[in-house]
Formats: sequence, C-alpha cells, structure tokens
Amino acid sequence: MERRNDAAPANVVWHAASVTRERRERLNGHHAIVVWFTGLSGAGKSTIAHAVEEALHREGRRTFVFDGDNVRHGLCADLGFSADDRRENLRRVGEMSRLFIEAGVIALTAFISPYRDDRERVRAIVGADNLREVYVKCPLDVCESRDVKGMYRRARAGEIREFTGISSPYEPPEAPDLEVDTSVLSLAECVERVLQLIEPAIAFGPAGEAST
Amino acid sequence: MERRNDAAPANVVWHAASVTRERRERLNGHHAIVVWFTGLSGAGKSTIAHAVEEALHREGRRTFVFDGDNVRHGLCADLGFSADDRRENLRRVGEMSRLFIEAGVIALTAFISPYRDDRERVRAIVGADNLREVYVKCPLDVCESRDVKGMYRRARAGEIREFTGISSPYEPPEAPDLEVDTSVLSLAECVERVLQLIEPAIAFGPAGEAST
Repeated sequence: MERRNDAAPANVVWHAASVTRERRERLNGHHAIVVWFTGLSGAGKSTIAHAVEEALHREGRRTFVFDGDNVRHGLCADLGFSADDRRENLRRVGEMSRLFIEAGVIALTAFISPYRDDRERVRAIVGADNLREVYVKCPLDVCESRDVKGMYRRARAGEIREFTGISSPYEPPEAPDLEVDTSVLSLAECVERVLQLIEPAIAFGPAGEAST
Repeated sequence: MERRNDAAPANVVWHAASVTRERRERLNGHHAIVVWFTGLSGAGKSTIAHAVEEALHREGRRTFVFDGDNVRHGLCADLGFSADDRRENLRRVGEMSRLFIEAGVIALTAFISPYRDDRERVRAIVGADNLREVYVKCPLDVCESRDVKGMYRRARAGEIREFTGISSPYEPPEAPDLEVDTSVLSLAECVERVLQLIEPAIAFGPAGEAST
C-alpha cells in the first residue's frame, strides 16, 4: 500500500509521552512495584497491605492499596464472583496495577485471587520483574472463626455461592516470593517481612540513582 | 437479626486504610485532579495532555496521562467502538481516574469522548469538584487534513465504522471549563491556558497547607 508521507501536514504536532516511568521514579526517589497479596477471606491480606502502606508512606514512598472496597464498587462494579468474572476482575486489577507502577506508585493488591492461572495471567500483564507475590496463609478454621464480615456464616448458610474455601477452591501459590502465616505471626512481624521483601526492589542503588 | 459482637475473636486485626488522599497530597505538595480533554480525533488532545504533563512534572507534580495507547490495549482491550463499548470504556477510565486522584496523582485523560451523557457520567463518578473539562476544539476539515494516523482516510474509505465526525456524531461540551482551538492557538498557548486553569485547583493554599 502506498505510503503518503508527503501528504503529512507541516503543522503535525509533538505527541510522544516524554514523562516516563523512570522520570517519575526519580522524582519519587524510589522504584515502583506491585505487591500481590493472595489468601483466604479473613487471612489478613487487606490488614497487612494497609499496614505496609502506612510504613512505606511514613518513609515518603508513593503507595496505593487495591482491594474489594475500592475496586468491586467502582471499576469492576459490573462483575460478580463466578470464575469468569473473577478472572476478568483480576485482569483489570492487573492492568490497573501496571498503570500505577507506570505512574511510579507502589501498588499493593489485596484480593483472594484463588486460582493459580489467574495469578499467572496477572504476572504476565505486570511483568514478572515488577511483581512480588505474598501468600497470606491462614488455616480455614481460623479464618472462619475470625469471620470479620460475617461472610463465612452466610456462606455456610448457603446465602453466598462460590465462596472460596467453602464452596469454591483456593489454590495456594507453589512458589510465592514470601509466605506469612497470620495464625502464627503478629501483624508487626508480617509487615516487617513484607518490607524486607520489597525494600531491595524499590530502593535506588548506591550510585546516586535517586538524585533528580 | 441477632448481632453477635460477643463472638468477635480477640485477634481481629486493624484493617482501615490509614493513608488517605489528603496525606498523599501533603506528601506530594499539591492536590490531585482529573483534567478531561475531549475533542475530535486529530484535534490535539494527547499532544496537549502530554505537553501539560511535561510542564507539571518539571514543577515536581505527580502526573499520568491516559489515552487510547495505554488503555485500549490493556484495561479496555475487550471493548470496541460501538456506543455501548465507548460508554463502558469511559466509565472505566472515569473509575480509574478516581483511583488515581485518590492516590494523589493528577490524571490527564485524552479521549474523544463524543457523547455528552458519557462525559456527565464520568463527572458523576469522579465528582464535579475533582474534574476540569477541556474542549480541544478544531474544525473537522483541519483534523482530517492532519490525519496523523491515517484514520480519517480509512474512515472515508469505509474501512472504519462509527468514526467520530465522519460516521458518528461528536457532541461539543456546552459549558467546558476551558476551550482551546488548536487551529488558531499554538501548542504553547494551549498548554499555558490549561496550566492556568488547573493551577488554582492543585496548588495548596497560603496557610502552610503544603508542609508535611
């Protein structure tokens, strides 16, 4: 097909995105990364994610936590909890996380994300180098005894279909970057281990990389 | 129904999001806002958005540009260009922008967004106070003569259906916060006017609000 570059008008204007992830990271003084928390309902994903965020924010890091509260009512309000809808929910969270790290923000995601395949898909979207998977482990009976939102009771009563751990499977990660058992460790201990995991990924090197 | 607070286990852990938009804005030294650019293909939305971003970034502001390039291939890869799909595309961009300003980032969006109703829906999602609408005006024949991506030629040839301005309507904003005509103004002039529009919305007040 004929290329018509000669027809390009003289007033074609500059379009390129000149503000890159790298420049935003320099401005922030740290790299961006996705920290993906997975585990049963009630295991403590959101709690740990928010506590990690608090610690990072106090160090001047740019952060954001994604969880059901801010995603399920907004971006994914059109989705339910079937396997297909969960897959689409996580795909969107993956794509959104990718945009957040492009924006230089550390994205902490707290979703049950029960299926291995879906988590692998997220890893492919975000890029393996950009993601750390944290398995928030906790025995089902402990999660059920906590039952913060009364969800397990409703699931046992048959009021909630496809509830992970009760009527729908949870596939634990085979090789998470970190595993924290919240039935054994304190919240402070979990947070400390997560910070140790991600610090090398977000810190600038010693070569003055952090200067703007 | 019986409330069973007495059954709440002692080890229920803290969950609340303690890092708020306000704290993030203080850390950044500026408020966050959505700047919504609307106009025909080729009018210059992306060009202006990226140039505005460059200027803001140099002032140390946290920014991100959303356009077809980073949204249509990712978050909205499942959507086409029918009126329904465009509506859903803009809904998601609206929801995502809402999360970005929650994260303290100035979100600049460059989408044709041809329908008034869809833009109003975005305004409802984001909140009117958080949004500034910029109409990037340019006569159709000028846009068509630019035809940066060869889209108009393909639309005229019938290769693209529902192409705004050719085979699908564009409804201009009735009361945009700003209107810039790129067939008259230079890029620098457009950028300057946009910066003047948003500066009062992102700047901290004189009462030392900017200190962390």
